Amino acid sequence: MSKLLAVGTVAFDAIETPFGKTDKILGGSGTFVGLAASQFGVETGVVSVVGGDFPQSYLDMMNNKGINTDGVEIIKEGKTFFWSGKYHNDMNSRDTLVTELNVLEHFQPVVPEAFKDSGIVMLGNLHPLTQASVLDQMNERPKLVVLDTMNFWMDIALADLHTVLKRVDVITINDEEARQLSGEYSLVNAAKKIHEMGPKYVVIKKGEHGALLFNEGKMFYAPALPLAEVFDPTGAGDTFAGGFCGYLAKTEDISFENMKNAIIYGSNLASFCVEKFGTQRMEELTKDEVLTRLQSFKDLTQFDIELS
Amino acid sequence: MSKLLAVGTVAFDAIETPFGKTDKILGGSGTFVGLAASQFGVETGVVSVVGGDFPQSYLDMMNNKGINTDGVEIIKEGKTFFWSGKYHNDMNSRDTLVTELNVLEHFQPVVPEAFKDSGIVMLGNLHPLTQASVLDQMNERPKLVVLDTMNFWMDIALADLHTVLKRVDVITINDEEARQLSGEYSLVNAAKKIHEMGPKYVVIKKGEHGALLFNEGKMFYAPALPLAEVFDPTGAGDTFAGGFCGYLAKTEDISFENMKNAIIYGSNLASFCVEKFGTQRMEELTKDEVLTRLQSFKDLTQFDIELS
Repeated sequence: MSKLLAVGTVAFDAIETPFGKTDKILGGSGTFVGLAASQFGVETGVVSVVGGDFPQSYLDMMNNKGINTDGVEIIKEGKTFFWSGKYHNDMNSRDTLVTELNVLEHFQPVVPEAFKDSGIVMLGNLHPLTQASVLDQMNERPKLVVLDTMNFWMDIALADLHTVLKRVDVITINDEEARQLSGEYSLVNAAKKIHEMGPKYVVIKKGEHGALLFNEGKMFYAPALPLAEVFDPTGAGDTFAGGFCGYLAKTEDISFENMKNAIIYGSNLASFCVEKFGTQRMEELTKDEVLTRLQSFKDLTQFDIELS
Repeated sequence: MSKLLAVGTVAFDAIETPFGKTDKILGGSGTFVGLAASQFGVETGVVSVVGGDFPQSYLDMMNNKGINTDGVEIIKEGKTFFWSGKYHNDMNSRDTLVTELNVLEHFQPVVPEAFKDSGIVMLGNLHPLTQASVLDQMNERPKLVVLDTMNFWMDIALADLHTVLKRVDVITINDEEARQLSGEYSLVNAAKKIHEMGPKYVVIKKGEHGALLFNEGKMFYAPALPLAEVFDPTGAGDTFAGGFCGYLAKTEDISFENMKNAIIYGSNLASFCVEKFGTQRMEELTKDEVLTRLQSFKDLTQFDIELS
């Protein structure tokens, strides 16, 4: 079992979907990654920053799930990062209503001593220089560095992104972002170009259309589980990444074959995340539910054709 | 081995993609279904209509592939159905430039005597009354009736579509059309509603995002093979349907488990279809190539997680 270090946001979200709306609730990429990884009993440390307005009860909940929050800096006089968004009827597109960076604006992640030897590091969607500063603090190069990013950083910090990508093993990115980063429309060609930028593994997230894993000519595909109702997609991508990293940390096997399983676990957990608002479903999720749904993923994808 | 009866268009296409453009070349849903099914050595009869301008060499090619064209009526004084379209850069959307129905406008399919006992009938995308008239000509109810349709018929002949759907086992439809037909956004719910209209099996085609098979609570998903280059998507959906029907006709097993394989074969053949303009790739395709690609589909989708 490797330790997992997850750097990302711990935040307030206010969400509106066709099914309802919430007040400020718990959100943030670090939160969702941590909750997903907690399903594997992995020792996970979250590095983030919150303001004095952040309820202790949220930190308590994370701690009760086995998530170490020593790396979550609390700036008493500051306010927690706040995002508010409204999803359209198709649940694939959304409008951002409010983004208040608050304490996130000058976030300088500090890795707790106990997590400087983490085998797996998940660099959440932050400025590439901030992501690099985390790697600088590790005792030695982690066994696996996973990086999430988005078009925003390609627009304003592309050179820095290219620099940090050279230190990364796995990049998780959505399809449009992969196209933007590579300049290639075909995802096969996009992955090839992104390989050349550093990451040996490229995970392309396609939302309701699943996720693709590329590794130097090899490909694997995990569908999203078709659901009768997607209640709130917020955090699904981070939950996917957290499931991916958590499974690899638990199994300590970073072969391509095992990454297939990690991708399936990521999709599995993400399919729960969207069933309720915010972190609610992930907080109450049991191991039995996860295993039952793993069977659903097998039924959905496995076939038996004789090659003749 | 069952006989397969495929009713659809045999036509001229002129296609423009970012990779080039063609003059009038061979196209049509019946053509693509027939070519796909020919991979399985199935006795396939195509029922369609062409004009006096249709080259005998195209019919010869189909006959050489083992496709029976006795049901392709030739109206000497008429002109063959012609479609021309231009694909956008994303290859998922296209503009129709020309649609000349010509002889298709008054098409009255006549099923040849030798195919009135076909076990499997594929009703291509035509007016629902035309589709129904084919079923009326069969000696007895076929073992499996597969129907393809599109939003156009939902707009202008919805009542007729509902009537013929009651006589259908499998409907193939794309995601937007499934939503339109059912009034449900979620594909899971859409499939449920469409089940209630008649078809026990609902195949939802999502183009580059693969295809879903629903059967009364059960689901199976086949991805499209990610390709470095999609040269021309024309006919991919019909090739998919032809592979599906052809495999079922060959194996004579219409269980859900075997339909999984049929869906994979459909995706397999469709992945070849898009590699060249029109029918070109399907005409030259060998069994060895199909089997090699079947292995690619296995590598892409199969995983081995212990449930523990």
